[in-house]
Amino acid sequence: MTDELQTQVHDAARRARVAAKLLATANTQDKNKVLLAMADALEANAADLIAANERDLAAGREANIGDALLDRLALNEKRVAGIADGLRSVAGLPDPIGDVRRGSTLPNGLELRQVQVPLGVVGIVYEARPNVTVDAAGLTLKSGNAVLLRGSSSAEQSNLALVKVLREVLADNDFPADAVQLLPCHDRASVQHLITARGLVDLVIPRGGAGLISAVVQQATVPTIETGVGNCHVYVDRAADLDMALRILINSKTRRPSVCNAAETVLVHQDVADRFVPEAVRQLITHGVTVHGDKRAAELVEVTPATDADWDTEYLSLDIAMRIVDSLDEAVEHIGRHGSGHTEAIVSDDVRAARDFVARVDAAAVMVNAATSFTDGGELGLGAEIGISTQKLHARGPMGLAELTSTKWVVWGDGHVRPVS
Amino acid sequence: MTDELQTQVHDAARRARVAAKLLATANTQDKNKVLLAMADALEANAADLIAANERDLAAGREANIGDALLDRLALNEKRVAGIADGLRSVAGLPDPIGDVRRGSTLPNGLELRQVQVPLGVVGIVYEARPNVTVDAAGLTLKSGNAVLLRGSSSAEQSNLALVKVLREVLADNDFPADAVQLLPCHDRASVQHLITARGLVDLVIPRGGAGLISAVVQQATVPTIETGVGNCHVYVDRAADLDMALRILINSKTRRPSVCNAAETVLVHQDVADRFVPEAVRQLITHGVTVHGDKRAAELVEVTPATDADWDTEYLSLDIAMRIVDSLDEAVEHIGRHGSGHTEAIVSDDVRAARDFVARVDAAAVMVNAATSFTDGGELGLGAEIGISTQKLHARGPMGLAELTSTKWVVWGDGHVRPVS
Repeated sequence: MTDELQTQVHDAARRARVAAKLLATANTQDKNKVLLAMADALEANAADLIAANERDLAAGREANIGDALLDRLALNEKRVAGIADGLRSVAGLPDPIGDVRRGSTLPNGLELRQVQVPLGVVGIVYEARPNVTVDAAGLTLKSGNAVLLRGSSSAEQSNLALVKVLREVLADNDFPADAVQLLPCHDRASVQHLITARGLVDLVIPRGGAGLISAVVQQATVPTIETGVGNCHVYVDRAADLDMALRILINSKTRRPSVCNAAETVLVHQDVADRFVPEAVRQLITHGVTVHGDKRAAELVEVTPATDADWDTEYLSLDIAMRIVDSLDEAVEHIGRHGSGHTEAIVSDDVRAARDFVARVDAAAVMVNAATSFTDGGELGLGAEIGISTQKLHARGPMGLAELTSTKWVVWGDGHVRPVS
Repeated sequence: MTDELQTQVHDAARRARVAAKLLATANTQDKNKVLLAMADALEANAADLIAANERDLAAGREANIGDALLDRLALNEKRVAGIADGLRSVAGLPDPIGDVRRGSTLPNGLELRQVQVPLGVVGIVYEARPNVTVDAAGLTLKSGNAVLLRGSSSAEQSNLALVKVLREVLADNDFPADAVQLLPCHDRASVQHLITARGLVDLVIPRGGAGLISAVVQQATVPTIETGVGNCHVYVDRAADLDMALRILINSKTRRPSVCNAAETVLVHQDVADRFVPEAVRQLITHGVTVHGDKRAAELVEVTPATDADWDTEYLSLDIAMRIVDSLDEAVEHIGRHGSGHTEAIVSDDVRAARDFVARVDAAAVMVNAATSFTDGGELGLGAEIGISTQKLHARGPMGLAELTSTKWVVWGDGHVRPVS
């Protein structure tokens, strides 16, 4: 049984490799044409897509998956249009393939260029939201990669319907349909087979909770990129403008509490704690946030007592941990111990404090007087994102099209040979 | 016993993390001063280093490790001076840390920069040559990283002596000595502990044979970069200048047959085979090369008959496989099946053939009318190299200082919050 599934996954990967070879040399105009046609086809097939989605929703309601998940899963006319617009905006982005990262002519006349090329076959493992299916297909296609999509079983009908439309458009435009493939989603083992298909798959990006990501990273023999776990901090410095700090804190926590760039802990310098903490807690509560405060915060205002576990918790909900620190050093030290390397923010009018924080905090993004919510491919000008990397290798922070590429040195000579040194 | 070794490796990694935090903010002048002081100290201690090396050589002779290995292991005044000069040249290279990869100011006034930062703690696993110990320490120091060196037991005395000198210089210059540490080398398990020290080590680079690299990649939970396996091809096109092809072939094969950029297979277009093959085989034999030819080559000239295994063999010796192909397509297909993604060369005066080969061959470097031997950090203008990556993620081809860095988004605002979309 498992062997059959492995064969299925490996065969899909082999077909993807063949497709990837064709995609690698596809030109930008043709790729954009396909992306726009995909967008139109999704809108034209909206009724079918919504009907398929309704079957997933019915199964989800039966399984009591909860309103939040049902909402993330749901498709309607407006959401289908939004997904289609996403493809149109990817079509409008510059093609990363063929870009020259660096180049020169050596004294001996050799001409060097390091050119961006596709990675090849990219696997994406993700959870409920069907829009990821189309976003991932669009970004990988634009960057010349074939994609293996491993969505969740709760979105199976929606994903099958979406991928059917995308593959028909590929075939109609003389592109290989196997550039976009959906892997079996009922057995966890299909993830296992994907992440161990060394030599067949060039990269796997797990998008999901800490459990999925850690399992993938532990077991993978294929290169992977960790994404999306964010235990982000807002540090309110002694020299902070406290009104600004409040706005940044509220926005960082409450804008979308379920996403990885939301703040999970606020650290407050002791010198401003008595002025900042009571008002901050009051406003957080007004916004529906539960504040898990340390003992010193509890001396200033009523809070839920924080435990040690709170410092390491990515709530992804309307909860925030609060700690009062003696100094910027202690804030940096706390972040070094508990942060996940995603996004860290300082609020301060003190240039030295801000520069010190930026230099010493080790994270994908460090914000000075700005909300953590800005760590996002769209906001940072990448045009789109396939995930937010919290690892240091290859890509760190939001991953756009360029992060889905590798490079190739292209060297033109005229009979050059290398002297024996 | 193993647990004790694990503790030893993990403790070293923890000390390296502390050192890395200090190195990350060290300025270029100070780092260069240390590099130059290291170079001077190695030369000043040459007698001690050579005496330590003599103990390794004596043990090696006793163990009959062979003349080639003994030669790679040996230190003398000239080689110590060469190693010191390597450090001086690293001091002269631009500092990659703090370089801005991209940056902009958003319409809302947020100022963005993506800045190069060190990776943190880098592990290097390598074999006999003691110069790697110093090269790796120099490159990691310049790029702000702490290094954990896991050399081979056959070079233990040399490595201990070298690292002692380097650490003394670090301490004398108010740098953390733990920026450079040598791991125990008598037990394979120390490699195992290094590559599974997730959270403590940011990158492991295995430098060595295919066996080591594959073991590391299979078992590692720490990010790794595959290096140095090269099954490189020279393709002699129907439109090749055959004199040029011969020079490139001889140089690619014989310049240094033991290194990964040496050619291991020559593919010859059938239209030029009868003119090229006999003379090529004659000259290869003159250079001491054994030619493992396919049946069609054997019809033209006497060769050692090639078996299927030859196409996949990285000889690293004065051997080469030879195959006659019907077309450029067949050459590209052969390389796709048997190449290791290192370096592939075409010799051709036909622009279309050359461009086609460059576009379709998937490798770290593709040469047109130039020898495979040019795939080298020094030759390609990187200044130095810590290995040649044959993987697609993070770094592909020669890895210099920039490839030992990650990035950090630094965002300066003035109270910016993100609107709810």
